[in-house]
Amino acid sequence: MSNKPTLYTCLSPALLHLYDVRECIVVVIDVLRATSTMATALYNGAKEIIPVDSVERCIQLGRELACITAGERDGQVAPGLQYGNSSFEYPRSFVGGKTLVLTTTNGTKLLHMALAKGATEIITGSFLNLSAVCEHLIAQNKKVILGCAAWKDKPNIEDTLFAGAVVSRVKEHFEVNCDASHMAECLYDLAKDDMYEFMKRNDASHYHRLTGFGLEKDIRHCLTPDLANILTQYRDGKLVVLPG
Amino acid sequence: MSNKPTLYTCLSPALLHLYDVRECIVVVIDVLRATSTMATALYNGAKEIIPVDSVERCIQLGRELACITAGERDGQVAPGLQYGNSSFEYPRSFVGGKTLVLTTTNGTKLLHMALAKGATEIITGSFLNLSAVCEHLIAQNKKVILGCAAWKDKPNIEDTLFAGAVVSRVKEHFEVNCDASHMAECLYDLAKDDMYEFMKRNDASHYHRLTGFGLEKDIRHCLTPDLANILTQYRDGKLVVLPG
Repeated sequence: MSNKPTLYTCLSPALLHLYDVRECIVVVIDVLRATSTMATALYNGAKEIIPVDSVERCIQLGRELACITAGERDGQVAPGLQYGNSSFEYPRSFVGGKTLVLTTTNGTKLLHMALAKGATEIITGSFLNLSAVCEHLIAQNKKVILGCAAWKDKPNIEDTLFAGAVVSRVKEHFEVNCDASHMAECLYDLAKDDMYEFMKRNDASHYHRLTGFGLEKDIRHCLTPDLANILTQYRDGKLVVLPG
Repeated sequence: MSNKPTLYTCLSPALLHLYDVRECIVVVIDVLRATSTMATALYNGAKEIIPVDSVERCIQLGRELACITAGERDGQVAPGLQYGNSSFEYPRSFVGGKTLVLTTTNGTKLLHMALAKGATEIITGSFLNLSAVCEHLIAQNKKVILGCAAWKDKPNIEDTLFAGAVVSRVKEHFEVNCDASHMAECLYDLAKDDMYEFMKRNDASHYHRLTGFGLEKDIRHCLTPDLANILTQYRDGKLVVLPG
């Protein structure tokens, strides 16, 4: 028996009940595009991000706190909100020092599920902050669940690839007895030299959905490691940067 | 828009609710070892197989019908039953003309779920009858769901590989707009030259479980295409061979 902490990959929020998340660090993964946008906005100096699970709640909080409201439904800016879910909407000149209320289709839902199930710590993961996530997981030496937000509960390629990237970098430090983790790592190894091309070649459903909106540039950005390499942690209802 | 029927891969019974199984052929996949054993017993002349979801029901039916009772729980012969879940227990000399009542951990459960949700047709899939399954799917030209039985609802490597093998062979005939199918096909392409070695190298949980029971030979057998190449269809509560 190993004394290393366990690491599991959960490919969909609809599978989260199979894992005991207590005493775990849960990494919420929603590569296209919630957790990429979160990393970017905080990297660019946003004070905090409040993730909420409905457009109504987003509008209400935005009014109460007089802050930026943002979010997507089915990949587009949700009616009633000011901004969408593209990293390019959140440069430092715009978000510096500000509070953002963000609602997204899949990522926020998973975050609240993990919280309700008693996760010890919740961080968000995206390629944009891949190294920061991996370094934190290794340093903490606690049980880990890589939670893919998926698309309407169906496993997707890009979140699975990110889980595989993390497994690939941290596996020596964990007990990885989990087929989903091994499959994710195999797929990442296959895709890592050109993840955009991998998604295109394999007809990734999100590739089609976003290119249909003209968002090729967003996809390429979200697949680039360490462009916003900070650790984003959920604390008291808000996502903030954890000082490195 | 294509006029081809859709094909989806469902990586776990816990995700089946995401798919509309009505008007679909559902392929129940439990490579290690339920659907492999089913193919073998029917290929070797068994009259029919009655899949049941509990050991108690298996014992009861075995008594009423005076037939063979078989099943595993956690990979071993279940207490109170006569036989296990290895293809090697069902040679023609033993099962020819007989009825088998079989209970398994994951495969039977998925079969009953698909039935309850209104699948038009249920067949079972394993590498042992890979070609028969693919030829049938192409010939029927109906919507398909490849349903992985998984392990206690957690996606596993071997069922995913089988789904990938089917996708690889039939995809030209279907509309495959499904990340799980594409991921399964990528993994199959990576593994197909030596699937046993792939499972071993990637620490497949079922590889460990079964080799722990000395069942290396079973795994190798279950990963060999077309050794029992018949079509097994669920009809009126029983699995039977569909004449080719």
